Amino acid sequence: MTIAAAITELAGVFGDRLVRSGSDLELHGRSESYFPLTPPDAVVYPESTEEVSRLAAICNAQGCPVVAWGTGTSLEGHSLAVRGGVCVDFSRMARLLEVHQADMDAVVQPGMTREALNRELRATGLFFPVDPGANAALGGMAATRASGTTTVRYGSMADNVLGLQVVLADGRVIRTGTRARKSAAGYDLTRLFVGSEGTLGLITELTLRLHGQPEAISAAVCAFDRIGDAVDTVIATVQSGIPVARIEFVDAATAAAVNAYAGMEFPLKPHLLVEFHGSPQGVAEDAERFGELVTDMGGEGFRWSARAEDRSALWTMRHNAYYAILASRKGARAVVTDLCVPISRLAEAVEETRADIEDSGIPGPILGHVGDGNFHAVLLIEDGAAEELEVAKALSHRMVERALRLGGTVTGEHGVGLGKLGYMEAEHGAAWQVMGAMKRALDPGDILNPGKLVPPEA
Amino acid sequence: MTIAAAITELAGVFGDRLVRSGSDLELHGRSESYFPLTPPDAVVYPESTEEVSRLAAICNAQGCPVVAWGTGTSLEGHSLAVRGGVCVDFSRMARLLEVHQADMDAVVQPGMTREALNRELRATGLFFPVDPGANAALGGMAATRASGTTTVRYGSMADNVLGLQVVLADGRVIRTGTRARKSAAGYDLTRLFVGSEGTLGLITELTLRLHGQPEAISAAVCAFDRIGDAVDTVIATVQSGIPVARIEFVDAATAAAVNAYAGMEFPLKPHLLVEFHGSPQGVAEDAERFGELVTDMGGEGFRWSARAEDRSALWTMRHNAYYAILASRKGARAVVTDLCVPISRLAEAVEETRADIEDSGIPGPILGHVGDGNFHAVLLIEDGAAEELEVAKALSHRMVERALRLGGTVTGEHGVGLGKLGYMEAEHGAAWQVMGAMKRALDPGDILNPGKLVPPEA
Ligand SMILES: Cc1cc2nc3c(=O)[nH]c(=O)nc-3n(C[C@H](O)[C@H](O)[C@H](O)COP(=O)(O)OP(=O)(O)OC[C@H]3O[C@@H](n4cnc5c(N)ncnc54)[C@H](O)[C@@H]3O)c2cc1C
Ligand SMILES: Cc1cc2nc3c(=O)[nH]c(=O)nc-3n(C[C@H](O)[C@H](O)[C@H](O)COP(=O)(O)OP(=O)(O)OC[C@H]3O[C@@H](n4cnc5c(N)ncnc54)[C@H](O)[C@@H]3O)c2cc1C
Repeated sequence: MTIAAAITELAGVFGDRLVRSGSDLELHGRSESYFPLTPPDAVVYPESTEEVSRLAAICNAQGCPVVAWGTGTSLEGHSLAVRGGVCVDFSRMARLLEVHQADMDAVVQPGMTREALNRELRATGLFFPVDPGANAALGGMAATRASGTTTVRYGSMADNVLGLQVVLADGRVIRTGTRARKSAAGYDLTRLFVGSEGTLGLITELTLRLHGQPEAISAAVCAFDRIGDAVDTVIATVQSGIPVARIEFVDAATAAAVNAYAGMEFPLKPHLLVEFHGSPQGVAEDAERFGELVTDMGGEGFRWSARAEDRSALWTMRHNAYYAILASRKGARAVVTDLCVPISRLAEAVEETRADIEDSGIPGPILGHVGDGNFHAVLLIEDGAAEELEVAKALSHRMVERALRLGGTVTGEHGVGLGKLGYMEAEHGAAWQVMGAMKRALDPGDILNPGKLVPPEA
Repeated sequence: MTIAAAITELAGVFGDRLVRSGSDLELHGRSESYFPLTPPDAVVYPESTEEVSRLAAICNAQGCPVVAWGTGTSLEGHSLAVRGGVCVDFSRMARLLEVHQADMDAVVQPGMTREALNRELRATGLFFPVDPGANAALGGMAATRASGTTTVRYGSMADNVLGLQVVLADGRVIRTGTRARKSAAGYDLTRLFVGSEGTLGLITELTLRLHGQPEAISAAVCAFDRIGDAVDTVIATVQSGIPVARIEFVDAATAAAVNAYAGMEFPLKPHLLVEFHGSPQGVAEDAERFGELVTDMGGEGFRWSARAEDRSALWTMRHNAYYAILASRKGARAVVTDLCVPISRLAEAVEETRADIEDSGIPGPILGHVGDGNFHAVLLIEDGAAEELEVAKALSHRMVERALRLGGTVTGEHGVGLGKLGYMEAEHGAAWQVMGAMKRALDPGDILNPGKLVPPEA
């Protein structure tokens, strides 16, 4: 077997950093959502780019699948080794290599998590803004083109990665991009690897764009009677040019889950949570202008605060919302959906989805990064209950169709993995074949995360 | 001859919209800068995507080169048909197809110019921010990944194109992206075609991100004794989070050229020109905070204004600077350089370049989008003077080496074309071969703008 031969060779290089114990394989065969356990044949913990390069060369020669692993928080089964092979866990390549204060950039290894990076940056006055709810690894975030609550202001990983070091399938090491803020020197390989989900290369270093910690921050919260009013407030805010740094939606069901989980007392209504970054006067003004819009739109309970404790409580609540929802049904697993539509269609998309979920009998709170037109339903199913999984998948299928019908995308930020593979043709048409051609050009042996993202070879 | 056969076939499809007259060929064989006349064999004026698709299929079957043409303002000989063939002039596909007010996006044909688009948008309260000095076509701007004075605030074409319709080499028509603000659904083909300079496909439609016209605008100008002080002011401004919408540098030689050309009275010193967008209070505050920084850095003559006439005079001056410089030496042609470096190295890069130009004996005013670390020297040579061209090329060569030594790129925004092809290996190393692999995957017959961007086939 070629996989076996590769593992034997790799064991010679990696020694006890190649692991085949059942518990470790199982840990790397799990997904954060509903996909069945799919362990790899071995897990390898490289400590340098050179090691990753040797690993790739060996696996390429042997035709052994290679699946990268950041923190395993992706929600569509991205890092499951569906054809076996080697899982490359980047947790031992997790250092901050350089910070360039004047240039507002940093060079990091792929296993470093976003929270670890921001802890190390605290004293510099700079921060890295992209914040998927989980404390994901920066390599995994780049590979999934992650975004989060602050994307409406600071962009996603597509906007905040200046350059990469990448190990190609055959072991060659390349660099994409430079530390300059922009370049027109040929194809944008950085943005090609960002979002490629480990199918084109293994990211071994990232140059990230940093931002100045805002001088002042204010946050606000308010409730609405109807989802449509909340969404119309979002549109009005974006259009009037109020520079929101975050604008998040949670529905009544999410508010209920959060109240139960964290002892909060949010009214059981749709809410918007908002944050502003700027000068002290600026953020006060922004909050007030936003407050006026809220009143015009019939919102209520508008409160804003520039106190760190209040803000921190609000965003901890938001970041724990997924876990609060999971906890609201004992022993449940989640099918997490991820639509993104043009903002003019957002109210329609959310309201149709809300009604559809209610008819289904399955709990499914809705929340999302509505400033970007992006939202999620967290569909809760009993672990192992096949019928419920079917109902959830049917709901998710109708959501995807809705996104496409409304001019949107089947995944705003979570990515393709296994869960969205079946929709790539519907979203991209002939362009999906172009993705296949790129894949064959860069990974002719199909060893990098095979079975994902591109069309199956004919 | 395959080119001749293709042209015969195309004549049957395009009738009198295929032109072979000498004057038309010559017009499409000229470059804006110093490259020699290189006329194509024919110019075709398509009116629809279907026509472009038929053209590609015919040329692909015949192995006939196809070079796209927007407005021909690119500065590195991008659209010169160095292997002959057909020039596709998009000037008859220049319509605004859709404006989505609530979603703040628009769908345009590739031949529409940025000024025409903004004229049509005026009443909507929206605008498209990317502004290379020339009134370029949006298709050409996407193909060169153009940026401009507002990129420091609103980004470049990479950030403001949401999706494309593209005709591939074999005539297949694909769509990339959606009207959603973000997506994680596979490889970012939009950003692969943006900046591909007509070598991977022909852009026949663009979905562009629009921005709200700012409620208020203020502009400021100030002079410095030393280049280093001007640049340090830029760094301090960006770091302190003052949200500049534009921050441009012109050196003393540029100020002199502009004074002579437009009857202005700028002191013969390095200047910064700045603009702020926001609320009336906001832009007043921003201008004042910036003014304080200028004073701290020893700047002088600081003036700001929120009056439209003053602003307009300032930016007309900036946008005419290239022509003012050209006019400062009778009958001259320009070699325009385009470095971009990390901002911490900008003062060094500009000062070394200034000194080098002074030693050379050739006039070469410097100006640039310094908020991004990007600047140009406009090296003026007598038309036809071979020795001067050599001196200018040697200066340009040393500037490129300087950019790479300082961690930057050989072209911040103008692109590769012919002029920077020789530096792709130095900037990208093995990654340049990856670009070659992408090109072969999408255009195996090498018909799309052959001889540009990627490594020559071995
Ligand atoms: C509670 C919760 C909230 C979430 N909220 C968000 C959100 O708001 N926005 C969002 O975008 N996502 C969100 N996610 C999903 C997830 O956090 C992101 O997809 C994240 O980017 C995954 O990072 P990871 O390090 O866990 O990657 P993994 O799951 O380990 O890997 C993801 C993919 O990247 C590949 N990969 C990993 N490292 C590398 C590397 N070095 N080189 C090449 N390929 C690599 C893997 O092979 C795999 O295909 C959420 C998840 C949870 C559990
Ligand atoms: C005075 C002056 C100032 C300038 N300032 C700037 C600046 O600040 N920033 C900047 O970025 N540039 C600047 N430029 C350069 C130039 O304006 C830009 O490169 C611009 O983007 C070129 O657009 P165009 O329509 O003229 O393209 P063209 O020159 O016609 O073509 C450029 C390239 O794009 C390809 N192309 C054109 N249309 C298509 C299409 N539909 N599909 C596929 N490929 C296509 C062509 O084949 C060619 O390779 C300046 C130029 C001048 C003369």
